Amino acid sequence: MTAVAVFSFDKLVIFGVGLIGGSLARALREYGEHGDAAGLRQVIGVGRSSASSKRAVELGVIDGAAALQDDDALRDALSGADFVLLAAPVAQTQPLLERIAPYLDAGTIVTDAGSTKSDVVEAARAALGTRIAQFVPGHPIAGREASGVDAALPDLYVNRNVVLCPLPENAPAAVERVAAMWRATGGCVREMTCEQHDRVLASVSHLPHVLSFALVEQILASPDAALKFSFAAGGFRDFTRIAASSPEMWRDICVANRAALLDELDAYTAVLARLRSAIEAGDGATLEAVFARSREARSEWQERRVAGATPGDVST
Amino acid sequence: MTAVAVFSFDKLVIFGVGLIGGSLARALREYGEHGDAAGLRQVIGVGRSSASSKRAVELGVIDGAAALQDDDALRDALSGADFVLLAAPVAQTQPLLERIAPYLDAGTIVTDAGSTKSDVVEAARAALGTRIAQFVPGHPIAGREASGVDAALPDLYVNRNVVLCPLPENAPAAVERVAAMWRATGGCVREMTCEQHDRVLASVSHLPHVLSFALVEQILASPDAALKFSFAAGGFRDFTRIAASSPEMWRDICVANRAALLDELDAYTAVLARLRSAIEAGDGATLEAVFARSREARSEWQERRVAGATPGDVST
Repeated sequence: MTAVAVFSFDKLVIFGVGLIGGSLARALREYGEHGDAAGLRQVIGVGRSSASSKRAVELGVIDGAAALQDDDALRDALSGADFVLLAAPVAQTQPLLERIAPYLDAGTIVTDAGSTKSDVVEAARAALGTRIAQFVPGHPIAGREASGVDAALPDLYVNRNVVLCPLPENAPAAVERVAAMWRATGGCVREMTCEQHDRVLASVSHLPHVLSFALVEQILASPDAALKFSFAAGGFRDFTRIAASSPEMWRDICVANRAALLDELDAYTAVLARLRSAIEAGDGATLEAVFARSREARSEWQERRVAGATPGDVST
Repeated sequence: MTAVAVFSFDKLVIFGVGLIGGSLARALREYGEHGDAAGLRQVIGVGRSSASSKRAVELGVIDGAAALQDDDALRDALSGADFVLLAAPVAQTQPLLERIAPYLDAGTIVTDAGSTKSDVVEAARAALGTRIAQFVPGHPIAGREASGVDAALPDLYVNRNVVLCPLPENAPAAVERVAAMWRATGGCVREMTCEQHDRVLASVSHLPHVLSFALVEQILASPDAALKFSFAAGGFRDFTRIAASSPEMWRDICVANRAALLDELDAYTAVLARLRSAIEAGDGATLEAVFARSREARSEWQERRVAGATPGDVST
């Protein structure tokens, strides 16, 4: 036994084998081949669509599939599982956990990959009741524009932040086992509270998505939309790249994280109002000061990112 | 003589030999080597900094340089010039043209590369008075993150939109000569009014820059800025790429194009307010509808861009 757990377990069950779940499976399989651990004996995928499960088996991402609707298959899948990963849209957390609960072994650890955490924990408490200690909330901050199991990559999580938000009820050993699993994928595991997570992600991810969708919506609603789009160039392209994201996923995130998102949106609107006043007044000095400050911060961020510096201590 | 002028002239004088002016010079030199026309005999750069002029000569971008402050050198530079290009920040248009006016031959055509047009035309009218017919306003919509003459590329304008905003005073032949020059660089020349240009660019370029600067400013002003930056990922990176742009240039653009920019900013703020209400109400249907509409429009835009389709008729 060592102080830091090494990833080693036999059976992983993934609910929703798409980009996120599929990439975890592929990463852990590679780790099993090259790492010190015995690795993974079996990965089972559970989903609603038999076509996508079949594809995941074909690609060798999972060893077998179970239909969520099938009681016996679900019981077999969950029997003796070391880990369960929920990788479905966050709004499905509660119904999924209610479906899983009757078949969940006492020794199984459940974790998730949802983009919001306070609402997921609330859903998990409602579904699992006194067994909430088995649920360790998580969020790997990684993605691609492509989705689905065909887009899954074994190195999707390398050098990416993976946030864990341990609950007071979680045993430290359970949290450490989840951390070891993500470290085995190359991820950089960081702990914070659900509230911290939701505030931080609202700021640097959820708000920019809303702002980007809003720009395209505003242009669309204008009388000369076609002319405007025909002159849009590189700045527009980058600013709106995230407006090509999944409407369903972002609808769920906005609703799930609404409190933190509204705080950030209101703070942003206040900054915009200040800039509006400066533009109207022709106050070049204020505009230049804000733009220069932003450019410097953005450039420093980019340099740290390129340098691959270890992210700072979250407790500060 | 043909109906469409072929690019052919002897002497070009560029005020501000950086990325934009330098790329025009390099493009026209290549055209002279490979095209049907006799090409360019001489390119003279005029600027405040002798270091950057020297660098432009070293790189072979210009044949000679004149200091803006030197009356004799400026007279020599402008004597017999076919074209003058202003490629300095838009706020310098009026002082530059006032400096040029005493030495300007009657046959010289002056054009510019400014990101705003109504204010540039106002400045040109103030500086040139009854000689305004010699000034054909233009704006090549191209750029790179890097700036300065070292970043100049001969193919910067290939397949890029170049807007000309002819004045009632301009002779059609003068406009056509400017158009021929930009076509020789590979640009796609399109005519519109100054008001159309400023409204369109406010929407698809100036507003996104303000929104991007504002996001970085808002995060910076929050108590947990360092934590937030440390979790910023790919979405933030793309959304804020344009926040690394020149503060001076964007200060000038915001002030110069304030009327059109405020219109777009107010329309945008109204869209944000609608989205805020939907988020607060947990109105997933409205959010999903807006996001889906935006995604579709953004995807269509991207497909047209990749296909390299000819931009639509600006008169519609």
